[in-house]
Amino acid sequence: MKYSFKNDYSEIGHPDVLDALSSIGSKQYDGYGIDEHCSKAAELIKKKLNAPKAEVHFLPAGTIANLTFISSVLKPHEAVIAPLSGHIAVHETGAIEATGHKICTREGVLGKLTIADIESVLLEHKDEHMVKPRLVYISLPTECGTVYTKEELSDIYDFCRDFDLYLYIDGARLGAAINSPECDIAYNDIARLSDAFFIGGTKNGAIYGEAVVICNDSLKADFRYIMKQRGALHAKGFAIGAQFAELFAKNESKTEPQAACLYDSLAIHSITMAKMIAHGIHSLGYDFLYPVQTNIIIPVLPTTIVERLHKDYLFSEWERFDDMVAIRLVTSWATPMSAVEDFISDITRYK
Amino acid sequence: MKYSFKNDYSEIGHPDVLDALSSIGSKQYDGYGIDEHCSKAAELIKKKLNAPKAEVHFLPAGTIANLTFISSVLKPHEAVIAPLSGHIAVHETGAIEATGHKICTREGVLGKLTIADIESVLLEHKDEHMVKPRLVYISLPTECGTVYTKEELSDIYDFCRDFDLYLYIDGARLGAAINSPECDIAYNDIARLSDAFFIGGTKNGAIYGEAVVICNDSLKADFRYIMKQRGALHAKGFAIGAQFAELFAKNESKTEPQAACLYDSLAIHSITMAKMIAHGIHSLGYDFLYPVQTNIIIPVLPTTIVERLHKDYLFSEWERFDDMVAIRLVTSWATPMSAVEDFISDITRYK
Amino acid sequence: MKYSFKNDYSEIGHPDVLDALSSIGSKQYDGYGIDEHCSKAAELIKKKLNAPKAEVHFLPAGTIANLTFISSVLKPHEAVIAPLSGHIAVHETGAIEATGHKICTREGVLGKLTIADIESVLLEHKDEHMVKPRLVYISLPTECGTVYTKEELSDIYDFCRDFDLYLYIDGARLGAAINSPECDIAYNDIARLSDAFFIGGTKNGAIYGEAVVICNDSLKADFRYIMKQRGALHAKGFAIGAQFAELFAKNESKTEPQAACLYDSLAIHSITMAKMIAHGIHSLGYDFLYPVQTNIIIPVLPTTIVERLHKDYLFSEWERFDDMVAIRLVTSWATPMSAVEDFISDITRYK
Amino acid sequence: MKYSFKNDYSEIGHPDVLDALSSIGSKQYDGYGIDEHCSKAAELIKKKLNAPKAEVHFLPAGTIANLTFISSVLKPHEAVIAPLSGHIAVHETGAIEATGHKICTREGVLGKLTIADIESVLLEHKDEHMVKPRLVYISLPTECGTVYTKEELSDIYDFCRDFDLYLYIDGARLGAAINSPECDIAYNDIARLSDAFFIGGTKNGAIYGEAVVICNDSLKADFRYIMKQRGALHAKGFAIGAQFAELFAKNESKTEPQAACLYDSLAIHSITMAKMIAHGIHSLGYDFLYPVQTNIIIPVLPTTIVERLHKDYLFSEWERFDDMVAIRLVTSWATPMSAVEDFISDITRYK
Repeated sequence: MKYSFKNDYSEIGHPDVLDALSSIGSKQYDGYGIDEHCSKAAELIKKKLNAPKAEVHFLPAGTIANLTFISSVLKPHEAVIAPLSGHIAVHETGAIEATGHKICTREGVLGKLTIADIESVLLEHKDEHMVKPRLVYISLPTECGTVYTKEELSDIYDFCRDFDLYLYIDGARLGAAINSPECDIAYNDIARLSDAFFIGGTKNGAIYGEAVVICNDSLKADFRYIMKQRGALHAKGFAIGAQFAELFAKNESKTEPQAACLYDSLAIHSITMAKMIAHGIHSLGYDFLYPVQTNIIIPVLPTTIVERLHKDYLFSEWERFDDMVAIRLVTSWATPMSAVEDFISDITRYK
Repeated sequence: MKYSFKNDYSEIGHPDVLDALSSIGSKQYDGYGIDEHCSKAAELIKKKLNAPKAEVHFLPAGTIANLTFISSVLKPHEAVIAPLSGHIAVHETGAIEATGHKICTREGVLGKLTIADIESVLLEHKDEHMVKPRLVYISLPTECGTVYTKEELSDIYDFCRDFDLYLYIDGARLGAAINSPECDIAYNDIARLSDAFFIGGTKNGAIYGEAVVICNDSLKADFRYIMKQRGALHAKGFAIGAQFAELFAKNESKTEPQAACLYDSLAIHSITMAKMIAHGIHSLGYDFLYPVQTNIIIPVLPTTIVERLHKDYLFSEWERFDDMVAIRLVTSWATPMSAVEDFISDITRYK
Repeated sequence: MKYSFKNDYSEIGHPDVLDALSSIGSKQYDGYGIDEHCSKAAELIKKKLNAPKAEVHFLPAGTIANLTFISSVLKPHEAVIAPLSGHIAVHETGAIEATGHKICTREGVLGKLTIADIESVLLEHKDEHMVKPRLVYISLPTECGTVYTKEELSDIYDFCRDFDLYLYIDGARLGAAINSPECDIAYNDIARLSDAFFIGGTKNGAIYGEAVVICNDSLKADFRYIMKQRGALHAKGFAIGAQFAELFAKNESKTEPQAACLYDSLAIHSITMAKMIAHGIHSLGYDFLYPVQTNIIIPVLPTTIVERLHKDYLFSEWERFDDMVAIRLVTSWATPMSAVEDFISDITRYK
Repeated sequence: MKYSFKNDYSEIGHPDVLDALSSIGSKQYDGYGIDEHCSKAAELIKKKLNAPKAEVHFLPAGTIANLTFISSVLKPHEAVIAPLSGHIAVHETGAIEATGHKICTREGVLGKLTIADIESVLLEHKDEHMVKPRLVYISLPTECGTVYTKEELSDIYDFCRDFDLYLYIDGARLGAAINSPECDIAYNDIARLSDAFFIGGTKNGAIYGEAVVICNDSLKADFRYIMKQRGALHAKGFAIGAQFAELFAKNESKTEPQAACLYDSLAIHSITMAKMIAHGIHSLGYDFLYPVQTNIIIPVLPTTIVERLHKDYLFSEWERFDDMVAIRLVTSWATPMSAVEDFISDITRYK
C-alpha cells in the first residue's frame, strides 16, 4: 500500500469528530442548521474570531461555499478578481461562471495577489462594455501553500474599501495559515480584515463541512435563501455544526479565549510534518518552487529520484524541467511521523 | 422535550451507518468518489436494481442532486414538467430556475402527475415562443406520501418515450415507496421505467447523501463535470459511499439478490410506524387528506385536539378548514414504537 | 392577399418614423445611445411623463427589455409575480427563468392581476425554502387587451410599497392603454405609480425599439452594464432614439405638454379601428370574451362564420367552444378603415 | 464638427438600405423572421456562400448574436477558447459568462489565435475539476484589423474537428476581411471551414442586424427557441431581412454568383480608405502596431501630433509609449475621400 501525500482529504476525519457525531445518538434536532450544535459552533467560532456580530453558516463543501457566497453578493455584471492559480479560477469547473460571473485573473507573486494586480484589473475595466470588478478572491494559504502577511492582508483590505470592492478569503486550509510560524495573521485579524471568508473543515479534521463567516453587515441578508437555492442548506445541518463545535471546543475556556482548539492542534501537526519533510529535502541540497509555509511542499527533485518515490508514495507532479521535476506533497492532520521519516529516509537513500 | 413528527431527518443516522464511518479509521482513499467504498456501494445498488449498466453517483443532498441532474440534461430552452406539489416546484427556492429552466406545473391527483397532465403541458407548448418541455419530474413517494402504481409509472414512462421526454424520479424517500404495501414497484422496475432517479439516503438512515442513478446511456456523459461545477463532488466522496455500502450491504448475498438490506428494513419500520398512527386515528373516526401509503400521515383533526397535541409534539399544519385542521405527521427509521403509542393514547384521551 | 388582423407588428413602421431615419443622412453620431437623438427622445418622454428624474433607455425589443430590466433588479433568490397570461410567463420562451428567476403566476381577473392575487403569492412564500417574491409584473394593456383603472394601479403600487415589492409594467402596447377611453391612467400617472416600465415602440409606429423608463432611483445604477451584457445596447442606439424622438415630437410645445404626439394619434387610430370592429360584431348579436378596451378584440363567433373569414383574413383562434370559436383580432396604427369595413361587411354577410 | 474615425457604426446606414426599408410601405408580413424578405436574404447569402444547406438567421446585433449562438451550443461545463483580445472576452460585459460559460483566453499572434494556443488550452484542461473547452471563437478580421489566411483557417478548423471542438467566427466586419487583398478566404470558404459564423450588417451598411449562419447540421435544432429566449427574435424580423436582401442583392445574377454585391462594395470602400490613410502615414515614416489589412489602422505617432489631431478628429488611443502613442483609426463604408485627404494633409502639416 502506497502512502499518499497527494492531498489533505484522504482520511475520513479526526476520531474526536467522529465520536462527536456518534454521541448524538437518537436525539432529535430541527433541520437546516437551526439547532443547538450549529449555534454552539457559531458561538465558539465568533468568540475565537473576536467577531460577535459576524454571521456563521455551515456549508457542506468548499466549491459550494465559494459559489454560494460569491453569487449571493454580485449583481449580474459584476466580476471577481482572483490570482491565476486561485481555486475558483482553475479547479472548480467554471462554478463561478456557471452562476453568471466572470473571473479576472492576474499572475500574482508566489500565488498571492498583489495590490498592483488588483489595480491593473480596475484600470482595465472602465466602462459598461466591460464587467465591473467587485469582489477580490484570495486563498489563505494559497494553492502553493504560501501565506499573506498581516500587512499584506491589511493593505489589500484597505485598497478594497477604497475602491468599493469586497474581499473574500477562501480558507479551505485556513488553520494551516493561521498556525503557520510564517503567518502573523491571527483569528481576530481575519474577521477585521475581510468582508467574508470560510474556515475549512474538510481539510482539517472534519468529514465534511466549511464554516462561512460573513463579517460585512450589508452582505448578510437572505444568505440562507441562496444556500437553499444552490443546494448548500443541508437537512441535517446539525451534523456539520456538531463537527465544528468539536473542532473549536477548547475555545470555551473564558480565561484563554485564544487557546489552541482541536482545529489548531490538527493544523499545527500538519505544518510540523511539512516542515520536517522540507527540512529533510533541504538537507539533501534540493530546492523548492515556493517557500514551505504551511502543509504543502513543492520541491524540485531529480527525475530519477521521483521515479523511485512513485513506487511507494502517491503524490502529484507539478512541473517538469529537463531532468528535474517539481512535485507537490501535502501533509495533513493525519500524517503519521513514521510516514514522514520513511519518506525522508527513502529520498536520502535514492540520492 | 416534545417528540417531533415534523420530518424524517431529525436524527443523525442509523448507528450501523455511523459505525461504518468510524471503522474507516485512518485509512487513506482517493478523493472525489473514485474509491472502493463508492464502487462497492455502486455495485450493491446496481445489483439491487438489476441494472448492471446504470451509472451511480453519490451526491451530498437532495436539492443539489435534483439541480445537478436536471441542469446536466436540459438545453437552455428546455423545461421541466412537475406536479404542483413537486419539491423542486415549491421547496427548493427556485433552484431549477436558478440554473435557467422553467418548471411547468400541473395539479395532479393525490400529488401524482397524470398522463393527462403531461399531455396538457405538451399541447400548450407548441412553438419557439414557449419553452420546450423535455423532462418529467415526479417524486416517489410524492410530497403527500402517496405512491404511483407500477402500471401508472410504466404508462408515464411509455408516454415520455413516445414524446421524447426524459423521466426523472426524485427518490428522497424511495425506500418508503418501494417497501410500501400499496406500491407494486420493485427495485428492478425503477431502473427499467425511468431515465434517471435518486435513492435518498438523508431521509432513510444516512447522515447525508443521495445516490443518483442514471439509466439512460445518452445522459451519462460528463456528469461528474456538472457535479463538480455545482459543488456536488465532495472531496471525501468515500464517506458517502461508505454509508450507502452499509445501507445496501445485505444485498451481497447472491442467492437472495432482493433480500431486504438495512435500507429496506429502515423504510419498513418507518412505514409500520405510520400505519400504526393512521390506524389509531382512523379508529377514532377521523379521516385523512391522502391515503397513508408510506411514512407521511395527513389526518384532519378537530382544532381543539390539535392544540393540545402541540404541547407535547412537533408537527406541521397543512391546511385549515373551519374547526378542523389537516396536520402532517412524518415517521422515520428512528421513530420509537413508544412515541407512536404515546401519540395515539394522547389523541384518544383528547377526543 | 389576405388582410391580417393577427397582430400589430405586421407593418414596418409609420412613414414619419422612416423619414426620420432617412433624414439622418451621413451624419455621424457617438455609439451606444450617447447621442443627441436619444437624449432628445428621453427629454420628450420625461416631459410627457412629468418625470424629470426618470431615466430613459432605448432597447431594441420587448422580450429583451423585460429580461434586461428584471434581471438587473433581482437577487438570485428573488422571484416575479405575474398574471398567468403575462407575456413573460408564456410567450418569451422562459427568458426570465433563463436569467435565473422563477415567475409565480396567478389567474387574475380579465387578464389583470389583483391585490388578492399578489397577497396570496406572498402568503405562500414564507421562508428560505421558497423563492422570495420581489417584483410584480403587469402588462398595460393586458394580453387580453384590457386595462387597469387608475385606482387599481394605484392600489397595486401602494400594496407593493407596503410589502417591499417592485412594480414593473410591460407597456408593449402602452399607447393603446393610455389613449383608451376606458383607461383613466394618464402619462403622468404611470411614472408616479410604478418603479419602472417600458413604452413600446415596435407595436405602435416604430420599426423596432422600446423605451425603458426607470422611475425608482435605487434601480438606476449600472443599468447600461446589464443592457450591454444581455445584448440590448445597440451600437447605433441613435437609430432607436430618432424613432422615439419622432413619435413623441409633438410634445415639444411647452404650452400643451400633454398634447397628443404621433405616438398617441397612432394608438388612437388603432383603438378606433378596434372599437369599430367590436361595434360591428356586437350589432350582429355576438359577444366577447373580454371587454374591448384597446386594440384587441376577442369575439365568440359561430365556427361556420370563422371558417369563411379564414379565407380572406389572417387572425388567430383563441379558444373553441362546441360550435363557437373565440378569435383574436388585433388592429394597429396601420389598419385602414377599408379593411375594417370589409371585415364587418363580410361577417354580416356570412351570418 | 470633428470628423470621427472612432468606429464604423457612426452613420445610420447606406441610403439603398434605408430605401429598401421605406419601399416596404404598408405591406403586411408575418412576424419573427418568417417572411419573404428573410427568406430572400437567406437564399442570397447561401448562394453567395455556396452553402445550400446552411441555416441563416437574422439577429439584431453582434453581442446578442454571439451569446445566443454560443449558449445554444454548449453544455453547462463546456467553455470557449478565444484570443485575449476577442470581443467576447473583453468588450461584451461578461455576456458569455452570464450565460454560464467560462472563456479561456490566449495571447495569440497579431490578434489571431494559433493552433498552439488552442492546444495549450486543451492540455491544461484534463479532468472534471476543470471546464471542458468545446468551442473556439475567433474574429475575422480580428479586433486589431488583421486577417487569417485560408491556410491558417483551414488548419484551425481541421484541428477543431480532430479534437471535437466547434469553430465559430465572429464576423462583425466579415466583409472587410473577405474583400481584403491580404485575405485569400472567399465567401465559399467560410461556410466550409467553420461550424457557424455571423455576417455583420451593423458595421457594413445596415442600420442594425447580423446574419448568423449555421453550417454544422448538429447545431441547427431549436436555434429559434434560443433566439426568442435571449430576446433576439424580433417581431419585425422582416426589417432585418430586407436590409440583408438589399446588401446581398447583386448576387442574384446566376451567371456571376460571386459578383460583388453592395455588401462587398461597401467593404471595399472602407478598406480603400484605410489603405490610403495607412499609405499617407507610412510615407511620413511612421510605423504601425499591426499590419493594415482591413479597415482598422493602428499607427504609432508622436504625442505632439496626436494632440493636435484630437482637435479636429475623433479617434481612440490604444497604447502609450513614452512620447509616442498608438492610436486606433477606423474607416467605414461612409468615410468620404475628403475626410481621408484632410486627415493625411493635417498629419503631414503637423509633422
